[in-house]
Amino acid sequence: MKLLRDKVMTEGIVLGNQVLKVDSFLNHQMDPVLMREVGSEFARRFAGEGITKVLTIESSGIAPAIMTSLELGVPMIFARKHKSLTLKDDILVEKVYSFTKRETNEITVSKKFLLPGDRVLIIDDFLANGEAAFGLARIAEQVGASVAGIGIVIEKSFQPGARLLGEAGYRVDSLVRIASLENGTVTFVDEVHESL
Amino acid sequence: MKLLRDKVMTEGIVLGNQVLKVDSFLNHQMDPVLMREVGSEFARRFAGEGITKVLTIESSGIAPAIMTSLELGVPMIFARKHKSLTLKDDILVEKVYSFTKRETNEITVSKKFLLPGDRVLIIDDFLANGEAAFGLARIAEQVGASVAGIGIVIEKSFQPGARLLGEAGYRVDSLVRIASLENGTVTFVDEVHESL
Repeated sequence: MKLLRDKVMTEGIVLGNQVLKVDSFLNHQMDPVLMREVGSEFARRFAGEGITKVLTIESSGIAPAIMTSLELGVPMIFARKHKSLTLKDDILVEKVYSFTKRETNEITVSKKFLLPGDRVLIIDDFLANGEAAFGLARIAEQVGASVAGIGIVIEKSFQPGARLLGEAGYRVDSLVRIASLENGTVTFVDEVHESL
Repeated sequence: MKLLRDKVMTEGIVLGNQVLKVDSFLNHQMDPVLMREVGSEFARRFAGEGITKVLTIESSGIAPAIMTSLELGVPMIFARKHKSLTLKDDILVEKVYSFTKRETNEITVSKKFLLPGDRVLIIDDFLANGEAAFGLARIAEQVGASVAGIGIVIEKSFQPGARLLGEAGYRVDSLVRIASLENGTVTFVDEVHESL
C-alpha cells in the first residue's frame, strides 16, 4: 500500500533494531485520510469473506478498525486491556503477554457482542510477536465464532508473529511488511526479494 | 441529533441514577455509521472555527475523533492515560481524576504534535464531571494552543462538567444532553424544558 509505505519512509523513526516509531500518523497523532484508506484496503482484501464483526484491541487499533468496519458495513468491537480483573461471567477473557511492557494483561470482550457463527476480521496496528492477535482469535473462538483473517497495518516480519499465526492456520494480511530495521533503515520485505 | 438519541433510547441501559451503559454502539461495540454521522455533525458545528487539530483521550474518544478529523481535514491526536510516569521533557502532562475509577491518572501528549497557534477541538464520548475535558484543555494551553471548543457525544447534564466548563469560558457542544437517569429512565434536557 503505497500511501502507507511512503508515510513509513518519510515519517517513521527507527529506534534500535526492533522499534519503529510511527506516532506522527498511526498511534498517537493519526492521519485520518490514511486511516480511511487503510480501512478501504482491508475491506477490499477481505471482501467476499462474509465478515460480520471487526475486532480490535484498544487503543491504536481503534481508528483503522472503525474505518474498516464502516467500509464493510458491520459493527466494530474493541477488546479492553486490564492489568487485573474482577471475574464476571458475562465477559470473555484471554491472557496476553506484552513483550514491550514485559507484563501479562487480560483482554476482555463482553459476551453479548460476539456470537457463534460470527465471521470475525481482526485488525491491529502492529504485528510483532503475535500475542495480541492470538489473544483476539482465542476470544472469538471461545464463543464459536470463526476468524476470517487478521489485517495488520505494519508487520515487523523479522519478528515471529506472522509466521506463527500462519502456521496456526490464520490468514494474515499486512499492508506493509518490514524485513529489517537494521542500521537505522527501514527495509521492506519485497525489497529483500527484489535484491535476491 | 436524532440518530444518536434513538440509539440511546433503544440500546442505552440505565444503571442506577448516574450510569448510562452504551457499550453496544459507543464504547465497546461501536456503530461505524453512527460514528461517521457524529463526526460529520461535530465538523458542521465547528466549521468556520479554523480548527487545526482534533484532540481526544484513549480509548472511547478515538472513533468519534477520527471521524471528526477526517471531515475537518486535520490530524487527530489521542492523549494517553498512565497510572504513573517516568518524567520526560518531550511530553505534556496533566493530572486527571477519575470519579468512576476513584484514581488520578496522568494524561500525556507528545510536545511535537501540539504547537502554539493551534486551534484545538476537543472530542470525547461522555461528559460528566469534566475532569478529562479540563485536562485536555490544559494540555493544549500549556503550549499556547487555543481551545476552539469541546464536542461531546453524550452529556450527563445533571453532573457539573458542562456548567464548570462553560463558566471557565469554553464552548461545549454536546450531541445529546441527558437531564436525568432517575427511575431507570433517560430524560433528555429538551424534554425537561418542554414539560415546564
